[in-house]
Amino acid sequence: MVADTPARPPGTRSRRSRRGRLPGRQDWSTWPHYQAADAGFRGYWYPVAFSSRITGKPTAVTLLGERIMLMRDGGVVRALKDRCPHRGVPLSYGAQQFPGTVSCVYHGWTFDLSSGELVAAITDGPASPICGKVTQPTFETAERLGMVWIFVGDGEDAPPIDGQLPEELVSNPAVVGVRIQRRVGNWRFAVENGYDEGHAKYLHRTSLWRLFKAMPVYNDTRIVRRGRWIYRVQDEQYWEADFPGLGRWSGQAWYKLKPPKKDAGNRNIGNTGGSQKVNETIEAQDFPGFASVSMPGVLRIAYPHFIHYEFYVPVDADHHLYVGVMAEFRRGLRTLPFYAKYLGAVRWLFHGQFSGQDKWMVEVTDAPPERLYRPDESLLQWRRLAEDVTKARTARLRDEGLDLGDTEA
Amino acid sequence: MVADTPARPPGTRSRRSRRGRLPGRQDWSTWPHYQAADAGFRGYWYPVAFSSRITGKPTAVTLLGERIMLMRDGGVVRALKDRCPHRGVPLSYGAQQFPGTVSCVYHGWTFDLSSGELVAAITDGPASPICGKVTQPTFETAERLGMVWIFVGDGEDAPPIDGQLPEELVSNPAVVGVRIQRRVGNWRFAVENGYDEGHAKYLHRTSLWRLFKAMPVYNDTRIVRRGRWIYRVQDEQYWEADFPGLGRWSGQAWYKLKPPKKDAGNRNIGNTGGSQKVNETIEAQDFPGFASVSMPGVLRIAYPHFIHYEFYVPVDADHHLYVGVMAEFRRGLRTLPFYAKYLGAVRWLFHGQFSGQDKWMVEVTDAPPERLYRPDESLLQWRRLAEDVTKARTARLRDEGLDLGDTEA
Amino acid sequence: MVADTPARPPGTRSRRSRRGRLPGRQDWSTWPHYQAADAGFRGYWYPVAFSSRITGKPTAVTLLGERIMLMRDGGVVRALKDRCPHRGVPLSYGAQQFPGTVSCVYHGWTFDLSSGELVAAITDGPASPICGKVTQPTFETAERLGMVWIFVGDGEDAPPIDGQLPEELVSNPAVVGVRIQRRVGNWRFAVENGYDEGHAKYLHRTSLWRLFKAMPVYNDTRIVRRGRWIYRVQDEQYWEADFPGLGRWSGQAWYKLKPPKKDAGNRNIGNTGGSQKVNETIEAQDFPGFASVSMPGVLRIAYPHFIHYEFYVPVDADHHLYVGVMAEFRRGLRTLPFYAKYLGAVRWLFHGQFSGQDKWMVEVTDAPPERLYRPDESLLQWRRLAEDVTKARTARLRDEGLDLGDTEA
Repeated sequence: MVADTPARPPGTRSRRSRRGRLPGRQDWSTWPHYQAADAGFRGYWYPVAFSSRITGKPTAVTLLGERIMLMRDGGVVRALKDRCPHRGVPLSYGAQQFPGTVSCVYHGWTFDLSSGELVAAITDGPASPICGKVTQPTFETAERLGMVWIFVGDGEDAPPIDGQLPEELVSNPAVVGVRIQRRVGNWRFAVENGYDEGHAKYLHRTSLWRLFKAMPVYNDTRIVRRGRWIYRVQDEQYWEADFPGLGRWSGQAWYKLKPPKKDAGNRNIGNTGGSQKVNETIEAQDFPGFASVSMPGVLRIAYPHFIHYEFYVPVDADHHLYVGVMAEFRRGLRTLPFYAKYLGAVRWLFHGQFSGQDKWMVEVTDAPPERLYRPDESLLQWRRLAEDVTKARTARLRDEGLDLGDTEA
Repeated sequence: MVADTPARPPGTRSRRSRRGRLPGRQDWSTWPHYQAADAGFRGYWYPVAFSSRITGKPTAVTLLGERIMLMRDGGVVRALKDRCPHRGVPLSYGAQQFPGTVSCVYHGWTFDLSSGELVAAITDGPASPICGKVTQPTFETAERLGMVWIFVGDGEDAPPIDGQLPEELVSNPAVVGVRIQRRVGNWRFAVENGYDEGHAKYLHRTSLWRLFKAMPVYNDTRIVRRGRWIYRVQDEQYWEADFPGLGRWSGQAWYKLKPPKKDAGNRNIGNTGGSQKVNETIEAQDFPGFASVSMPGVLRIAYPHFIHYEFYVPVDADHHLYVGVMAEFRRGLRTLPFYAKYLGAVRWLFHGQFSGQDKWMVEVTDAPPERLYRPDESLLQWRRLAEDVTKARTARLRDEGLDLGDTEA
Repeated sequence: MVADTPARPPGTRSRRSRRGRLPGRQDWSTWPHYQAADAGFRGYWYPVAFSSRITGKPTAVTLLGERIMLMRDGGVVRALKDRCPHRGVPLSYGAQQFPGTVSCVYHGWTFDLSSGELVAAITDGPASPICGKVTQPTFETAERLGMVWIFVGDGEDAPPIDGQLPEELVSNPAVVGVRIQRRVGNWRFAVENGYDEGHAKYLHRTSLWRLFKAMPVYNDTRIVRRGRWIYRVQDEQYWEADFPGLGRWSGQAWYKLKPPKKDAGNRNIGNTGGSQKVNETIEAQDFPGFASVSMPGVLRIAYPHFIHYEFYVPVDADHHLYVGVMAEFRRGLRTLPFYAKYLGAVRWLFHGQFSGQDKWMVEVTDAPPERLYRPDESLLQWRRLAEDVTKARTARLRDEGLDLGDTEA
């Protein structure tokens, strides 16, 4: 290696590097409830595990930063705060000694699984004066789509879970493929990535899934609120673009010579601009836009032949569960092709590599500060939805006299 | 997997989950000295290592949060603060260059092992003006029971170690088996677990040791203070219990048909209610109770044929040394059966699996907050003992004009 | 193991162990700019990577706590802040889509590599209103000695790098051997260790390098400032010493019977007390001392036949790059013996084991508090140099109206 001491390399102009505040938005104080919800929004049902994983042996999950013990008793899943009030040992290390109860591994404190009441302290005998004086917090549970769901609230009664699930999943038979994966990163980055208009066209250009799907370079998009969902409506799609001084950019699949025609939209992601039937069993189903989102972080992508859902479940401020659900509204023998397609292709191409790129971005996103651009209108509308809904809920609970404690910043 | 949308599962009642403060005691402010002693109580001798491990090559231990260098010189163990005052490099990385000294690895600062005085700075020559101007803190050491002990105080003279050891170990020949294990968890949880009445009957029910030992379901217990020890005296033991609405619970060994008789107590843990001889060489030894504890965290369990001790040595706020000592008061050829029994059974069954369950609980205990129950009287009395003794020591040292610095919260 | 209860072991005197403040200097407030510079001094060029490692594929380095993206474009290395202002994703995960630019992996925000200007947001089309409204911070770069250098300042124009490099490297042809290693420990400990007079004589006594090099036990040393360098001038060297009451200590190589004569100095490290030629190609080169140091942490050791440099590059407060450069001022065929020597011996003996001992000390140094001694005059003078130079630079920049922001404590 020879020490070279040439003059300043060509093209290096003397230039001041700038420091100081990053450009754009410094915090999320425009949406104070959203900003405060690092560990998730209370007042919702969240899926936490496959139903088949919850048995008579206690297990634990973390949801909204709280450890919860889960256990199946008499066919019903029960959920208690996973901390024995005696000395702080996790109840999920315990076991069932008497029907309908769980006993802490340390001293045999025994709680009724349904009410949370301390019904025995084994090592203090049947006359232990502490019985009936301690009640362990409990959580309501439900089972849907092959998963256990838990309601996390602020003391209010849990609303029926069916009122929170996507409507078409409640009232129509469907076959579903489900994937649950614990991921690094805040749950809000996961929602925002999922509903984000812009990144699919660039980040995912290298995924195998995209080999068979053209995608526009950019769109004209409106966000439409209808009920508890907001929809992305694409008024116009642009399949190629010339960037002045830079070059040409195309979103077409590599082997296609022409941009797809509007009426071939069924075979192209993103070309689902208006109302349509999802398939023969969902009549008059109206999806004004391809992608829609609702609280507390549920994404719905309406493909021509199936619907894909993503539930982003807050574990704590730095982790979330990715719950991907692929649903086709068929029944009987007609479900067989779904399984073949799901297991043979969708699971790997879509849930796998494509979704793995999203996983990566959610891990490394670091905002605010942030500098938003035009396609981020979808993010802004989602945050506004979250803020509006939460403000209304907070006012309602305060009217009911509930103490919301530390949920308010 | 088929999406099922049944009604609310049976047994799920609408119920408010409660939030807010945990029940019971929120802190340990009732015992301020005990609460402040996260990293241990000063003013005591602590065992830190097997004597055979301390040689002419410096080594380091952490005790009460402080790194201490240990080294054997002329047969005597010496202890210095393990941080060279020059640039903060551990002295334990150094070596002995001149008799009676240790030299720091970095610049050869050389300290007298006995006085801590800086007697040479090799790289500044014999006339270095810094010699005699720096003195490294030292610690008094002793060797007992095959271990090195260190006194950690606040500047006061160390009291004789024999005044702190269990009395019967000082004045009687004994054979001992010792186990030292670094464990996770605060030392106070270890003491409290060791002296705790309740958990042995439930947590340890699955240990192999218990296959051969029946244990009551619960007891009537009194705590008796005598000298520097507090003893657990069991007035009554209950071997079976019916828990109304739940079922029957028994503490008997699985192969025994009947509860043990009082006079068969020798073969049953916990049935050592009154004064008795430990064995032929300890005359008139009086243990009013089976389990006793003394400061700074020494547990003594008087079995019919031997005594088991546990010393819980504070390493820092999150770690402690478990030092288990099994002692039989025999000598000469009569020691041989002890070794056979200890190595062949006790070490594995008792020190191993049984104690491993305790280790697990100490790791996961998380208190305060805590909600104590009747058998925790033993914990309360231990905390009171620690508080009383420490309050008295603090007053005495202040009277003597010693600056206790940050030991007071 | 038999419980022994002997009296206090011989030699253990009753002694009070002392507590309280550590002796000596508690902080570095004497040198406030130096104290504040945990993550390095701004206003300098720093080497960060081998030139050959920087290609058209973006990569990232951390320098003074800041992540910087590096990428080669048209033969020139470009450096941008490695955080896309949109959502905080590292630009170094991106790729080049158009000449002279880099595009963020997430949404295709495309920055001009030279100016930092946002020239396209691919997923918002050619008419995106954000173009031209965002400029990413850039850094000036240079290539010297086979490495990429980056200037980190406070907004001022970068001075020419040649004015900061050791003078003899700018104006003379040289062959160099370079080693770059990321190390644990604050960069200031690395500089101080490098320039430190004392430790080489003791710490390195066990290195293989020292087998062939005698070293004095201690020296009489003066520090001389000349231009931007301070030099260590050794007035007298002492090859042996008697430490009263302890013993004799010698710095000679083990196989040498006599201390080296002054005129054999060429073959002995540290015996380079006065002005001399480094070799035939550097005429009138004047090094008043063997070891010299300059800002922002460059060490120069002038051996008789070559010069060894160490650049200590602040990565963050806890890591630094060790950049070792061995230079011989030869050219043409005369360079061949250098490579043979460097690869065959110097790289392993010196850069390897010897420097590995320094690496170890820099990792474990923990100061302040510190208690300095006479040979630490070299450290004090280095800190004074750093303080003086930085104070002057700060005043100059403030005069120029630059906002230094958080660089002032």
